[in-house]
Amino acid sequence: MSELTPLSEVGEFGLIRRIKEQVVLQQPSTIKGIGDDAAIIEPVEKQLVITSDMMLEGVHFDLTFCPLKHLGYKAVAVNVSDVAAMNAKPTQITVNIAVGARYTVEAIDELYEGIRLACENYKVDLVGGDTTSSRAGLVISITAIGEVAKGEAVLRSGAKVNDLICLTGDIGAAYMGLQILEREKQAFMADPEMQPELEKHEYIVGRQLRPEARMDVIHELKEIGVKPTSMIDVSDGLASELMHICSQSGVGATIYRENLPADEQMLEAAMEFNLDPVMCMLNGGEDYELLFTAPLSDYDKLKNHPDISIIGKITEASEGINMANKHGQSFPLKAQGWTHF
Amino acid sequence: MSELTPLSEVGEFGLIRRIKEQVVLQQPSTIKGIGDDAAIIEPVEKQLVITSDMMLEGVHFDLTFCPLKHLGYKAVAVNVSDVAAMNAKPTQITVNIAVGARYTVEAIDELYEGIRLACENYKVDLVGGDTTSSRAGLVISITAIGEVAKGEAVLRSGAKVNDLICLTGDIGAAYMGLQILEREKQAFMADPEMQPELEKHEYIVGRQLRPEARMDVIHELKEIGVKPTSMIDVSDGLASELMHICSQSGVGATIYRENLPADEQMLEAAMEFNLDPVMCMLNGGEDYELLFTAPLSDYDKLKNHPDISIIGKITEASEGINMANKHGQSFPLKAQGWTHF
Repeated sequence: MSELTPLSEVGEFGLIRRIKEQVVLQQPSTIKGIGDDAAIIEPVEKQLVITSDMMLEGVHFDLTFCPLKHLGYKAVAVNVSDVAAMNAKPTQITVNIAVGARYTVEAIDELYEGIRLACENYKVDLVGGDTTSSRAGLVISITAIGEVAKGEAVLRSGAKVNDLICLTGDIGAAYMGLQILEREKQAFMADPEMQPELEKHEYIVGRQLRPEARMDVIHELKEIGVKPTSMIDVSDGLASELMHICSQSGVGATIYRENLPADEQMLEAAMEFNLDPVMCMLNGGEDYELLFTAPLSDYDKLKNHPDISIIGKITEASEGINMANKHGQSFPLKAQGWTHF
Repeated sequence: MSELTPLSEVGEFGLIRRIKEQVVLQQPSTIKGIGDDAAIIEPVEKQLVITSDMMLEGVHFDLTFCPLKHLGYKAVAVNVSDVAAMNAKPTQITVNIAVGARYTVEAIDELYEGIRLACENYKVDLVGGDTTSSRAGLVISITAIGEVAKGEAVLRSGAKVNDLICLTGDIGAAYMGLQILEREKQAFMADPEMQPELEKHEYIVGRQLRPEARMDVIHELKEIGVKPTSMIDVSDGLASELMHICSQSGVGATIYRENLPADEQMLEAAMEFNLDPVMCMLNGGEDYELLFTAPLSDYDKLKNHPDISIIGKITEASEGINMANKHGQSFPLKAQGWTHF
């Protein structure tokens, strides 16, 4: 018997690469398979995108502090976020859930109430799925379909040298929200009489528990006439996502530390926890903001947008991926991201 | 706080009904949502079908006797079976998996080898998905997309009085195969020196471990010019599936005990286990054969097909759903099916 390789050695991306290498595409309608935020299917004229994500109790969420309604909403939002990152409009989802026998109908209703609310907000139809039992916690697996006019889909691979690097909203907040929730949980377990102190952390806790997909920005970019050259949603952390864009586009990047969009509550919480806020912004995941590149010529259209920060520029691949500070010093970026294994 | 209802009280179908009732369809492209084997989406001219199924270790499969390669194959086949039951041709799948940290890369390779093999056989493209960690066993969630010409999709709701009730292949074998596997597992656990006796049960064990979707029959029906009026795949058991067709079509049915297609190995195994083979055929799940109805006028086209049995006829709803024996006695059918909760 040959020697076995532990999964931890190749990591999630290595595993995906292995899987991708073994795939042989056969359908003329498959325009883009594994390797971007979503796959593209072209049945006739419109292109469809399809993306799928699975969340497991104890791995992706903790029901001690995550209400089922928020969880349902989030499970849809993270899939819609992948559709948005393709520059597509979500249209349908399928939802598979597995729940333990101890669950009540009311609990499942609450979960689906969140799913339904997200469907309403993002204007997607829940069109199918599977419900089954689980012997070990709740599992939610969602597939989202979206549509996009031919030629309008935005991949990770289109960034060009001198493009602007743009980021919507702020980052690091979802990660700090999680730290707060974990701390309050520990305090509660030590003393069940304790009331959690979440009020002053409301924004960052909300970012963790109920993120939104940035479909609003997708529509706004169309309105102001900006078509990104590449795009990805920030689920694993900014550094990791930027590296995906750079490696798939064959480019380098420099981002400016002072331009990274930080929320006040995130900064305060980072101080409280004695964490470097820049590290939280670079490597904290689950913000579901959009990271995209756009031609330099779009600078005037983007510079005053209240919800978009221009955080850097695309460089030659040989320059690597770096972060510069206001003193002109530059450091190579390292992606920590999330390790699932 | 209002009284809570245990899930077991409404059951899987009740739960699906609850979910369905809360869904509001918004997309003009959604032709058919929850309630059939797959949903139908019509982006431009072709209609797409999308279906999704999740399988969990300890609930849907037992890795003690189910090789990972077979499991991967089966996970695809059961989704393709749903596409087939819509009279559609599968085109793409997405695969989400969650695995424990103890897994090796080689084990995942084996799983995907089965998935890849199924993709090859059914000519579908694996176009995406998610891999993540699990703290409690393997989870596989697959979504399949298929295409069908407009007007050609076959729902569960089209059966008409006097239609023929037809069934492909044979049934009950997957259920008996599972009984054999469970018995050999017990014997092995009692005495690890024991070699499992599977040879004489090869067919029925294969039916459990590596079922095929009946895409072959879908193509053949087109060739002989038969378009089913309704169709469903047999995953939960014949009785349960027949009840779906009857309730959604607003009709009754009579099936003939002597016409139910039984395999010899299934009959022998049922004898060995002292089980009524007819009950195994009616309520044993996972055969993934197709149950369909066709106009009486298609009788000559169907009667000599080597792999299709005409097992009954559709009646008025008021007559109920019955099984008749050769002595002309008739009994109302009860669906046991699988209870997931």
